[in-house]
Amino acid sequence: MKATIYITLKNGVLDPQGKAIENALGQLGFDGVNSVRQGKLIEMDLADTDASAAESRLQEMCEKLLANTVIENFDIRLSDTE
Amino acid sequence: MKATIYITLKNGVLDPQGKAIENALGQLGFDGVNSVRQGKLIEMDLADTDASAAESRLQEMCEKLLANTVIENFDIRLSDTE
Repeated sequence: MKATIYITLKNGVLDPQGKAIENALGQLGFDGVNSVRQGKLIEMDLADTDASAAESRLQEMCEKLLANTVIENFDIRLSDTE
Repeated sequence: MKATIYITLKNGVLDPQGKAIENALGQLGFDGVNSVRQGKLIEMDLADTDASAAESRLQEMCEKLLANTVIENFDIRLSDTE
């Protein structure tokens, strides 16, 4: 089973990396680009075959290791590869 | 118009960050986790109202700044916010 986890900064949390991208795009002549935010995505293969078990395990992984839940949100997507 | 760009490493490109996550998950007792790959996601608001114009501009942004096309793939998703 394939899982993709999207980790994004919560609203209100400053994102200097996103701001830098926004400025760089402006300097390259791309105008009309606003509120750029950078996040992470993590793809993995899981041995689990049961989707709901996999999802609860992924949730635990995010809370323990992958995301900083004080400032980040995470979103889990599962897809079968069979 | 809201755009999300997913940037992932191409197959075959070594991903030490993903490997580190994989090892850390193993040490935390999460087994059966394989081929972890870390990528980036970039969210932005665009002033464009025409989806196909926005998409071609985003493609140019990715090629010029956001992605390193030698080792990375990018995937553009547009969503209307109106």
